[in-house]
Amino acid sequence: MNGRVYIYDTTLRDGSQTEGISFSCEDKLDIYNKMCSFGMDFVEGGWPGSNPRDDEFFSKAPIRDGTALTAFGSTRRYGVNPDEDPNLRALAASRAEWCCIFGKTWDFQVTDALCIGLEDNLRMVEDSVRFLKESGKRVMFDAEHFFDGFRSNRHYALKALQAAEKGGAEWLVLCDTNGGSTPEQVTEAVRIVSESVDAPLGIHCHNDSDLATACTLAAVSAGCRLVQGTVNGLGERCGNANLCTVIPNLSIKMGMDVGRIDTRHLAPLSKYIGEVANMTPSAGMAYVGDRAFTHKGGIHVSALMRNPRTYEHVPPESVGNTRRVLVSDMAGKASITEKLKQLGMMDEGDSRDIVDKIKEMESRGYQFEGADASFELMVRKLRGEFHPRFTVEEFRVFMDEYGTSEGRSEASVKVRDIHGEMEHTAADGNGPVNALDNALRKALRRFFPEMDSLRLTDYKVRVIDEKSATMTAVRVLIRTTDGKDNWTTVGVSTNVIEASMIALLDSIEYSLDKNSRKE
Amino acid sequence: MNGRVYIYDTTLRDGSQTEGISFSCEDKLDIYNKMCSFGMDFVEGGWPGSNPRDDEFFSKAPIRDGTALTAFGSTRRYGVNPDEDPNLRALAASRAEWCCIFGKTWDFQVTDALCIGLEDNLRMVEDSVRFLKESGKRVMFDAEHFFDGFRSNRHYALKALQAAEKGGAEWLVLCDTNGGSTPEQVTEAVRIVSESVDAPLGIHCHNDSDLATACTLAAVSAGCRLVQGTVNGLGERCGNANLCTVIPNLSIKMGMDVGRIDTRHLAPLSKYIGEVANMTPSAGMAYVGDRAFTHKGGIHVSALMRNPRTYEHVPPESVGNTRRVLVSDMAGKASITEKLKQLGMMDEGDSRDIVDKIKEMESRGYQFEGADASFELMVRKLRGEFHPRFTVEEFRVFMDEYGTSEGRSEASVKVRDIHGEMEHTAADGNGPVNALDNALRKALRRFFPEMDSLRLTDYKVRVIDEKSATMTAVRVLIRTTDGKDNWTTVGVSTNVIEASMIALLDSIEYSLDKNSRKE
Repeated sequence: MNGRVYIYDTTLRDGSQTEGISFSCEDKLDIYNKMCSFGMDFVEGGWPGSNPRDDEFFSKAPIRDGTALTAFGSTRRYGVNPDEDPNLRALAASRAEWCCIFGKTWDFQVTDALCIGLEDNLRMVEDSVRFLKESGKRVMFDAEHFFDGFRSNRHYALKALQAAEKGGAEWLVLCDTNGGSTPEQVTEAVRIVSESVDAPLGIHCHNDSDLATACTLAAVSAGCRLVQGTVNGLGERCGNANLCTVIPNLSIKMGMDVGRIDTRHLAPLSKYIGEVANMTPSAGMAYVGDRAFTHKGGIHVSALMRNPRTYEHVPPESVGNTRRVLVSDMAGKASITEKLKQLGMMDEGDSRDIVDKIKEMESRGYQFEGADASFELMVRKLRGEFHPRFTVEEFRVFMDEYGTSEGRSEASVKVRDIHGEMEHTAADGNGPVNALDNALRKALRRFFPEMDSLRLTDYKVRVIDEKSATMTAVRVLIRTTDGKDNWTTVGVSTNVIEASMIALLDSIEYSLDKNSRKE
Repeated sequence: MNGRVYIYDTTLRDGSQTEGISFSCEDKLDIYNKMCSFGMDFVEGGWPGSNPRDDEFFSKAPIRDGTALTAFGSTRRYGVNPDEDPNLRALAASRAEWCCIFGKTWDFQVTDALCIGLEDNLRMVEDSVRFLKESGKRVMFDAEHFFDGFRSNRHYALKALQAAEKGGAEWLVLCDTNGGSTPEQVTEAVRIVSESVDAPLGIHCHNDSDLATACTLAAVSAGCRLVQGTVNGLGERCGNANLCTVIPNLSIKMGMDVGRIDTRHLAPLSKYIGEVANMTPSAGMAYVGDRAFTHKGGIHVSALMRNPRTYEHVPPESVGNTRRVLVSDMAGKASITEKLKQLGMMDEGDSRDIVDKIKEMESRGYQFEGADASFELMVRKLRGEFHPRFTVEEFRVFMDEYGTSEGRSEASVKVRDIHGEMEHTAADGNGPVNALDNALRKALRRFFPEMDSLRLTDYKVRVIDEKSATMTAVRVLIRTTDGKDNWTTVGVSTNVIEASMIALLDSIEYSLDKNSRKE
């Protein structure tokens, strides 16, 4: 171990600044509990006094061992005493053990944004920290725009840090607020700051130059011992430093001690925050993304079987991720064996037959890359293990449009169950595929009431060979959930509606088959 | 300026390894032309001899001044002479001026993956490079897994580079193939390599540690003068180094000379590749993402009005991006002026009206990045310059399917020309969109015989908001040719057939309008 680094999560505050994100108080409490279990040293819950939701959060958040609940705020306003400043009073009154307040350290910001004297700002920093300290809080100081300030007026930037230290701040956090610094600039500044203050240093980066992870690591190498960031790199503009990539780099690559955190819980944490924030994490995200350990092509896969080091910089398990082997026509028996293992299916020595079947289907435009459920169903059908529970005897789709008025889409289906019972019904929809989906569910609900729990969560259309334009085959991918599991199915046809129907049917059959095997 | 750095784009080769991406030959030609105009020094087009599409690409790609068309491949196989190796022969026979071949430099890979002797590999590297050189090519060597090799057996890794140099390689490119290196490791290796070889060095990073940009910049600081990467960081697993963030860091932050490249064209390039690859670039992408200069909240915005330096590390215009302020409206006039200029249209001082119209359409899911013809048509309509030549009064689409038999798709349309004449006709098709396309052309042919020369060459469907599955809006992009020109149009609707109809109509109207202005 090369020393302890404290992890400070600001997903609930800086992360909530992301365009399109809005956490309810319940979301915030859930996330807070998750972060505590994960082992974050500090969780910044919000800004007490700034809005009712954050006040409610601070009144409800349980105090947990090992994680410090932290309240965010700013230095007092100009011209009032700290104990008259409503913002500081709300911080002092909150149940948080720690307060993190930001203040100006860039001379240009003091004179041009606050429009006050440089000495005034130093007094504001010092007495705001002291007020919170005397109110019984432990205090951290976020030095806003520190690196810009350091480049503009080094002497003043250092004086601002010293003012916070004099007031009683236990951590001084250097913020690259507009995300413009390079790792070299961060390294140099941290080295010089270390010589000018006694309090331990923290780092807070933004990703505007695609360098937030690198700047954070550079700061730690240069002596910072606290790292602020967000899960999935949420945050305004290009986001904050991404804890999902910073933590494994610190722990696995640099050998730093990250306290209670077990990196094997990182990928699930990333997915969890993605769900609550309703913002799917990027599939290519380093360490935790869906594609981070995905391998395509036969040569890679066979080399990988021999030794994963070849194409994996760390074992996927070390960050709670899994290796995925894409089943494509480049793939051979080795990838099928690996794939069956992943899906928890027996290898019955028929991988050659499966490869042949895949090749035949791929020549028609199928792609099982993203469609594990269709792959599993195909293997079960090939093995004679699959028993159809219904058949669609007919379906029709109708759509018309007159002039500028809204068009109309309708679908009818005839479905028969294994006892020969028939259901013939129809439904409208917002477009023909939606009408078909509605009609099919309506018809099947009579035989399979569990249909009600199924919900489509994703629908993707891809044109396969774009040469012949509207006559080309399309591939439809559908993702379905029953509230517990998710699965993806695929359908291919020259007709987008038929391709959708195939994928819809695969999804329903997969679900019914899975449930029957549980019984 | 701190020296020239050459930019090498491998979007068409390494980028096409991204899960879910499949470029047609026409896509590749379009992208290649775009990269040449953008000013890339090298464009790696693919791997001749590996598949028919890449062969077709190399037979068709025009040779352009200032950008070197480059063919990718590997060193010869063990046990054959270079001139007997089909892969090297295909490279030698290609029209590319440059070849980039990769070879092993990691001892473990040689003995454990290739299962050959270490000296054998050195000979393979040297005589493969020499063969291409003697075939009249200029040669670059991609040292696969170089940094792992350097850590494992420094002496051997350097010998492999020296073998390539002895064979005649003009560039030696150090590859961090599995993306596991840190900037410090890259810096150290580049410094030592510089002392051991004479050829100039390049760098090729992957983003598995979220450090590809930082490692690339560190390599340049340490002496590398060529950078390999992809637009939007496309590539297997977590992707390659992202040229959209590397280039502005090199040019704007580090003051390097990037040749003909104007960073103001970066954001449009990113969007363009996103459209062609059918993979939306991440909104939070540094420099070029939609959110990169988006500001939320009153305090930030008013500080920004006073001085943008406060929350913007570089001016958005410097990378062709625009500032977005979520509460108020202030985007885009400059880019509209630029766009009109590009399309050869007059700037009539109405760019504010155009911006407003675009915003309204974007809120419904439109995107004009890849659809210049629809953009031009929209501007002409707004200016009252567009005179419709026909109207579609009604259309219907019908599709049915019984059991396992082939389904049937039929469309009928009623079209009226400007003299009030009506044509009511119907056509079958291979799916409903194709039926509609056939019926529409059949009806319009009576009024506009030139319809016969139009041919759709591309059809793309994208789901805009994937959350609500089959009820979500889709965006259809259609590319049409009349044998001389190509143009792209866009349509948006919750109904895929209606969206297709809108794009089809735009395409036909654009063509008729263009021809009438020529007369």
